[in-house]
Amino acid sequence: MTTTDAEFLSDFEIMSTHGATDGGGVDRQAGTAADHATRAWFGGWLREHGLRESIDEVGNQFGTREFAPGLPYVLVGSHLDSQPLAGRYDGAYGVLAGAHAAVRAIAAVDEGEIEPRFNVAVVNWFNEEGSRFTPSMMGSSVFTGKLDPATALATTDPAGVSVAEALADGHGAPTDAPALDDIARYAEIHIEQGRVLEETSVQIGLVDRTWAASKYRVTVHGEQSHTGSTRMADRQDALYGASLIIAAARDLTDEFAVGELHSSVSELYVLPNSPVTIAREVVMNLDLRSPSEGVLERAMEKLADRIRLVEGRSRTRVEAALTHRWGLVAYQPEGVRLARESAESLGLSHVDIMTVAGHDSTNLKDEVPTVMLFVPSVDGVSHNEAEFTRDDDAVRGVALLTDVVRRLLAGELADEAVARADTLVAAEA
Amino acid sequence: MTTTDAEFLSDFEIMSTHGATDGGGVDRQAGTAADHATRAWFGGWLREHGLRESIDEVGNQFGTREFAPGLPYVLVGSHLDSQPLAGRYDGAYGVLAGAHAAVRAIAAVDEGEIEPRFNVAVVNWFNEEGSRFTPSMMGSSVFTGKLDPATALATTDPAGVSVAEALADGHGAPTDAPALDDIARYAEIHIEQGRVLEETSVQIGLVDRTWAASKYRVTVHGEQSHTGSTRMADRQDALYGASLIIAAARDLTDEFAVGELHSSVSELYVLPNSPVTIAREVVMNLDLRSPSEGVLERAMEKLADRIRLVEGRSRTRVEAALTHRWGLVAYQPEGVRLARESAESLGLSHVDIMTVAGHDSTNLKDEVPTVMLFVPSVDGVSHNEAEFTRDDDAVRGVALLTDVVRRLLAGELADEAVARADTLVAAEA
Repeated sequence: MTTTDAEFLSDFEIMSTHGATDGGGVDRQAGTAADHATRAWFGGWLREHGLRESIDEVGNQFGTREFAPGLPYVLVGSHLDSQPLAGRYDGAYGVLAGAHAAVRAIAAVDEGEIEPRFNVAVVNWFNEEGSRFTPSMMGSSVFTGKLDPATALATTDPAGVSVAEALADGHGAPTDAPALDDIARYAEIHIEQGRVLEETSVQIGLVDRTWAASKYRVTVHGEQSHTGSTRMADRQDALYGASLIIAAARDLTDEFAVGELHSSVSELYVLPNSPVTIAREVVMNLDLRSPSEGVLERAMEKLADRIRLVEGRSRTRVEAALTHRWGLVAYQPEGVRLARESAESLGLSHVDIMTVAGHDSTNLKDEVPTVMLFVPSVDGVSHNEAEFTRDDDAVRGVALLTDVVRRLLAGELADEAVARADTLVAAEA
Repeated sequence: MTTTDAEFLSDFEIMSTHGATDGGGVDRQAGTAADHATRAWFGGWLREHGLRESIDEVGNQFGTREFAPGLPYVLVGSHLDSQPLAGRYDGAYGVLAGAHAAVRAIAAVDEGEIEPRFNVAVVNWFNEEGSRFTPSMMGSSVFTGKLDPATALATTDPAGVSVAEALADGHGAPTDAPALDDIARYAEIHIEQGRVLEETSVQIGLVDRTWAASKYRVTVHGEQSHTGSTRMADRQDALYGASLIIAAARDLTDEFAVGELHSSVSELYVLPNSPVTIAREVVMNLDLRSPSEGVLERAMEKLADRIRLVEGRSRTRVEAALTHRWGLVAYQPEGVRLARESAESLGLSHVDIMTVAGHDSTNLKDEVPTVMLFVPSVDGVSHNEAEFTRDDDAVRGVALLTDVVRRLLAGELADEAVARADTLVAAEA
């Protein structure tokens, strides 16, 4: 059994009906009914294509095929969950591309074209997005030992529902599933979520590094008072302080060359959030990201200075807790070289590229030799219903990933040392 | 039956145990269990002191005493509901002071000291604060015909619970209660929620005008995208746009003399409010208030200019819908004069004062001759657990309010034209 490009595109259309939104995207946050519907559909797809479905304790969903009992796996996949009102491609494209690539590679093994050194498995990592349950990349973090499974399962969404409850209510009880020790290699393909490939008319990105990033949880402490009668000079307005920090974080990016620093604040909670009471507290996230560790370091220092100024101007007290920090971490050069050889063998144009966004491969590459690939995103739009990748780019990606999986099965990529990249600075609240 | 100052202070302590917070304040938002517990306690107090308890269709709670059937009422009161984590005095002081004043005035009638021209009633207006159910001053707005009762009852809190449901679950089904046509005069006492009385060492504020105010609902429209990978120049970040507006509204106040303009943003909702997705929409309130209509007019024009600049800088689209607007509206001068005579007869120092905050009397004064009084607030702290009014100030206020109610019962304040003050500019969403 193998698959055609037309089947891939047809499967992608069918898959995208799960959690479909009026705006042409999907909304299937981790563990919701829409996510479970997609998982159930994907489980059926795996079984129909001769793979054994299994699910681990934190909801990672696998499809395995053993060529010989006991061999470790070449694992390929991404995630099916999405942001709220998101696009159809982010993660889901990579899972389905991985599944088709695995089935095609299995066909090549079955037909004797490849002598497999490993077994093969497809994966749908649970909760990569982290919009409903924090942190993001939860499933792959537990799988790689970076996050305690009990902590992950006890994590609750804003309505108080835990991961354990969200998983119990949905598709698939835990079964005998692969663990990290069973994995020899990892490959993932993803849409770029940026404009580099499109603007340079290149077909494939070979991901060689991640941007450095520092993520904060910022708490602004003010004092409740009446919005009308409190004199301006007496106010200790936490929302005013927060707004100055948001603006300062954005302005920081203008102090560096274009593209050297990205900053964002995107999640914010106000207490008491009343129309007639000045905020006593605001809690928000704040991220700084850079392709240069030196720039990131200077940006962090400048941010700290700005926060001190904001405290004075708004008469608030600000805590900026650094929750995650990682430097400029490389994917294994051997993996990039293998992907380059593969792209060239298929006649695809390619460029080495950094990823700004985190991916499940960010976790996997710390543990096993890993290949990470990008296909173009139209206008770089992502986390938006309008996210789009053209069909010809999508099927080219499947072809390349198939070739990469074949090469990995054949043992082309050597074992090598892997460096731990992602650093959790402090325990999340 | 009459009451002593010691009884007033004791009753105030007991009342403040309902919804008491660890920080020494109260938390009894409208229609919550804590609000209903306070209402039930107050209903018992009314009955014990010879008043007939009644509740109207939107939860306004009355205690009436008829001297002669069919006479209209002198109504006195305020509200027992509070902001979240609020102080013990805002509203609740005025209800209890009104109840004691009514009982003392009734005693004077019963002893033949006054020949009553009216009956007397105490009121606890439902949902003055508006923190759980918008708009504020809901009960008195329905009572004065400014708000449709069906609209009020259908209003829901953020959890989807309606006013009708919150009332049905709590203390007191609707009974035969007074309506606007039954009311001849209104009196209310409240803590100042400002520092004028304290800083000038004056015991009583005679409220003669309200500040002018314009209230907006601001919606910032951006575009969802990835917080990491989206280029800064491509971002249309609704939360960044909102933060610039918050800062601009605050900076506006520096363009006028101290005390000429107050501005605030205190309630804000982010969509989708995810750690890795740039906000597509922010909805927030924005208030401008001034003791000068000319200043308010200029501030509104400047705000509109600033919003246009923010749209360009943040690449967002901003709708600023003016939901409420009122000018500098006077309380009846005859009511202020009567209160002044009363204060002088008791030897209390007094000053004419404007109110920045809205009160239920803002609604009532548009319909019936009204007297509004302030007692000092320590440091002007309000909508905060640390809100405090000294016992001697509190009991002086009860004495003054008693004298005012006696004068109103005796017919000292003439009927006169009343001018409609509060203007709802557009229907609330």
